[in-house]
Amino acid sequence: MRASQFLIATIKETPADAEVISHQLMLRAGMIRKLATGLYTWLPMGLRVLRKVEAIIREEMDNSGAMEVLMPVAQPAELWQESGRWEQYGAELLRFNDRHGRDFCLGPTHEEVITDLIRNEIKSYKQLPATFYQVQTKFRDEIRPRFGVMRSREFIMKDAYSFHNDQESLQATYDVMHAAYSRIFTRLGLDFRPVIADTGSIGGSGSHEFHVLASSGEDDIAFSDTSDYAANVEMAEAIAPAGERPTPNQTMARVATPNTHTIGEVSALLKLNAEQILKTLIVYGEEDENGKQDLIALVVRGDHQLNEIKAEKIAGVASPLTFASEEDIVATLGCKPGSIGPAGLNIRVIADRSAAHSSDFVCGANEDGFHLTGSNWDRDAAFTETADIRNVVEGDPSPDGQGSLLIKRGIEVGHIFQLGTKYSEALNASVLNENGKDQVMTMGCYGIGVTRVVASAIEQNNDDKGILWPASIAPFEIAIVPLNMQKSERVREHAENLYDTLRGLGYDVLLDDRNERPGVKFADMELIGIPHRIVIGDRGLDNGMLEYKNRRAADNEDIAIDDVVDFIQQQLPR
Amino acid sequence: MRASQFLIATIKETPADAEVISHQLMLRAGMIRKLATGLYTWLPMGLRVLRKVEAIIREEMDNSGAMEVLMPVAQPAELWQESGRWEQYGAELLRFNDRHGRDFCLGPTHEEVITDLIRNEIKSYKQLPATFYQVQTKFRDEIRPRFGVMRSREFIMKDAYSFHNDQESLQATYDVMHAAYSRIFTRLGLDFRPVIADTGSIGGSGSHEFHVLASSGEDDIAFSDTSDYAANVEMAEAIAPAGERPTPNQTMARVATPNTHTIGEVSALLKLNAEQILKTLIVYGEEDENGKQDLIALVVRGDHQLNEIKAEKIAGVASPLTFASEEDIVATLGCKPGSIGPAGLNIRVIADRSAAHSSDFVCGANEDGFHLTGSNWDRDAAFTETADIRNVVEGDPSPDGQGSLLIKRGIEVGHIFQLGTKYSEALNASVLNENGKDQVMTMGCYGIGVTRVVASAIEQNNDDKGILWPASIAPFEIAIVPLNMQKSERVREHAENLYDTLRGLGYDVLLDDRNERPGVKFADMELIGIPHRIVIGDRGLDNGMLEYKNRRAADNEDIAIDDVVDFIQQQLPR
Repeated sequence: MRASQFLIATIKETPADAEVISHQLMLRAGMIRKLATGLYTWLPMGLRVLRKVEAIIREEMDNSGAMEVLMPVAQPAELWQESGRWEQYGAELLRFNDRHGRDFCLGPTHEEVITDLIRNEIKSYKQLPATFYQVQTKFRDEIRPRFGVMRSREFIMKDAYSFHNDQESLQATYDVMHAAYSRIFTRLGLDFRPVIADTGSIGGSGSHEFHVLASSGEDDIAFSDTSDYAANVEMAEAIAPAGERPTPNQTMARVATPNTHTIGEVSALLKLNAEQILKTLIVYGEEDENGKQDLIALVVRGDHQLNEIKAEKIAGVASPLTFASEEDIVATLGCKPGSIGPAGLNIRVIADRSAAHSSDFVCGANEDGFHLTGSNWDRDAAFTETADIRNVVEGDPSPDGQGSLLIKRGIEVGHIFQLGTKYSEALNASVLNENGKDQVMTMGCYGIGVTRVVASAIEQNNDDKGILWPASIAPFEIAIVPLNMQKSERVREHAENLYDTLRGLGYDVLLDDRNERPGVKFADMELIGIPHRIVIGDRGLDNGMLEYKNRRAADNEDIAIDDVVDFIQQQLPR
Repeated sequence: MRASQFLIATIKETPADAEVISHQLMLRAGMIRKLATGLYTWLPMGLRVLRKVEAIIREEMDNSGAMEVLMPVAQPAELWQESGRWEQYGAELLRFNDRHGRDFCLGPTHEEVITDLIRNEIKSYKQLPATFYQVQTKFRDEIRPRFGVMRSREFIMKDAYSFHNDQESLQATYDVMHAAYSRIFTRLGLDFRPVIADTGSIGGSGSHEFHVLASSGEDDIAFSDTSDYAANVEMAEAIAPAGERPTPNQTMARVATPNTHTIGEVSALLKLNAEQILKTLIVYGEEDENGKQDLIALVVRGDHQLNEIKAEKIAGVASPLTFASEEDIVATLGCKPGSIGPAGLNIRVIADRSAAHSSDFVCGANEDGFHLTGSNWDRDAAFTETADIRNVVEGDPSPDGQGSLLIKRGIEVGHIFQLGTKYSEALNASVLNENGKDQVMTMGCYGIGVTRVVASAIEQNNDDKGILWPASIAPFEIAIVPLNMQKSERVREHAENLYDTLRGLGYDVLLDDRNERPGVKFADMELIGIPHRIVIGDRGLDNGMLEYKNRRAADNEDIAIDDVVDFIQQQLPR
């Protein structure tokens, strides 16, 4: 492509309303433009990247045996009413009426449509398993769209749905999809982790998210430094510390801790680490037959954070987890929340596994303004039971027994999910089984946020000059930058020849034939992030040399004119 | 692709609600399924065709220098208000509110969005001309969607928009697009015509429609049997008959024609051809300053049809063309509409060029129940002027002077259009010209109905067994049909080997490895319309032969096993 015949829409200034680096760089490099809140036009430069991402996804989906379909963006309300989601889905589901007043929505996802299709098309267990995918525009009316195409209202997803006779078949396809996703994100050149995920409100029995690791991510991912274990922080198990609880060394003492309300304040006053202090949180138990709720104490170490999702899953604990009011605490326990501790506490006490392993700890004295030091379990205090009720922290042992945990931010770019029979039951999607009986199909679903992948690749690959595209999705692989081409016939000729040769070899080449100063061209090519740059100028040609620079390298290299094609073929093997 | 791992969703019965052959065959061959009125899901088989159509269009658009972009489906009302179309566009524009109550529409077309983009991105005349295209989902809330994807509500269009400094540059790009469209439809294997079209309500100064010729088309196309002249029947000029008007042979006579109200009835009564009878139609002229409208007579031959578009463009004739009421006719001319004729008629008389060339004609006597025979211009009757006010008919001379006209039905699949400054003026899209002054850009737009192309290809290519795909867009190029593969190891081995070999050569091959009877497989492959079929059976193998059938040929051919790859390579050169 000749730059003079292509829309190079670079911007020098960082746009004021772009908060994250990918949004800033996509605007500055002329990849996207905002049409309205959460709606973006893909400019020619950005679309080249998007299409390469799509192509890799398609190839791997096809290779995994999935069949491509294309379902409408507009979906009739009837199917959503059948699944129950017409009522359940909130304002993110964009609903509208057609000219005859009939209800429709813009699809944020296509479970209903595909299930309706397959219940009509697939009649026999012999036709299963079958997996279908599409690459299609989706709409989610986010209350606060942000970060450019990272969280836009209109976006492109690859969504896939599989249909099965049983759970075993679902698991097999799920594993195939897990492998396909790993190949996709590897080919996209991304540092990613498949992460054990919560199955959330959608229901079902197995789920992995695929996260691109980047400091701007909205999710915390815990993963082993040794194995391939990875999970959302909320999901990662905090296992019990190894070995016996240390033997007590101290005797318990009551100390005044006036005006201390937080672990930090107690820790500062007593000059102790937070991990030596236990915090006791009071929540409500489930209602009994009279509507009465007991109080329950949750005890975690001062350096740990309560994990509410884990806590509310414990039998007897009210779900959603609800902290007791100060009034109820004072009435039942005789002191305010900041001074509660397990010593002599006359209610159910659930100690986190790590807290249960502490010795000589500090805790509230159950008397306003006082704490106890040198406390010990059994001798001074008691728990009813132990449980995993905290978030893991960096350095915790990995739950799979291999290595210890690192925690990093991740951007969710993919999600695979064992749906089970949630939709097939609601829509009565069944096949005839071997015995000629109706049998509800088992389903899986598998999504990749195609437009979001582009943004997350930038979050992970940038420097102060611009984008550092992974080779497989760069808008162009090679930039040829001729200097003074408008005046030097020799430069023009070499540039045009090299352009023709490299294109002939199948490379995506951008020839920057614009009548611009070298500095402008260099800055644009770096901002756009083209991985390989070849500069052609009269000074180099005098010595038979061209100048090569890898976008990720600090320095230029001089390459003899006759060697440049070989050199590029080594850098970019076909 | 193995048929056992692909959704072959053929249907034996013709669906009741499918009126046209393409809709019937797309349903029967398992290409599409209806989700709701005017909304269709593309099944794997149909999508393969759609993607091939898209690929050809993209290649030719890229080669023509157009840059691909992707604009949102959802568009904010503000831009449509700026262009004035928010008010003008009827109920086909699907409008909706987002969660914050803001007005949006689903784009039926993207002139506003692209003009908004370009007014922000292109600032200098030096950046022009520039052409942008996209392949995107569009929505038009048709009052009566019909014919499957031929006239659906959600559909895929390739739309392109070009921006220019002046009309000359627009004309140059328009010509490039005309050529690109011709290459596209040629590569798609379609019998098509670029047709001079009316610029209609959109305004602008030049327009061609690209029509696929098919008897089910909704438009009548007139085209030369000799040259490449083609126009919508409404637009084609009916030129004056050659030579002098024949010399009169008859004397005028008044004949009773009781109870005749139509040309057909008069023709039957007098035993004369319709072309010997002139019909006189009375319309209103434009209002004068007092609001009064004179009557005007339009005279055309009895075998010709008045062209209202042509007639209402004549100065002084009311637009839209309005026929005079019987009351006004009787009051002014003294007889009813069925008996009017130009002889002695005391109002403005506009004779069609052919009618003005008639001699010894029959016409109304301006007296109820009577006609005049043997009438002649000048001697018996007079016209004020002549004009082209009729539709052309087959056999008319071509307006370009080459050959004579044929008339066929066409399906509009493409449209190129010189927009001029309609949108750029409304949205104030200008560049700085050579003198540093603001100058409104000149625009063109260019559309192809991608989904409609698929249906129109079928309308043009089918027989009683199913679809006859043009080679370039067939879902698969070759079907391998093994007989009794489940039992014959030899058949299986030959089928698998041939499958591997042909795929290795880059062909799209469907191996029908389903456990179905031969008759079912043959019928399915013919219905789906795969151009080349190779049958492998034990009987043939005994003689070292395979059976080949071209979908368009009547008979099979036996091909020696060793020759089959060469044979296919001759049929489908790469």
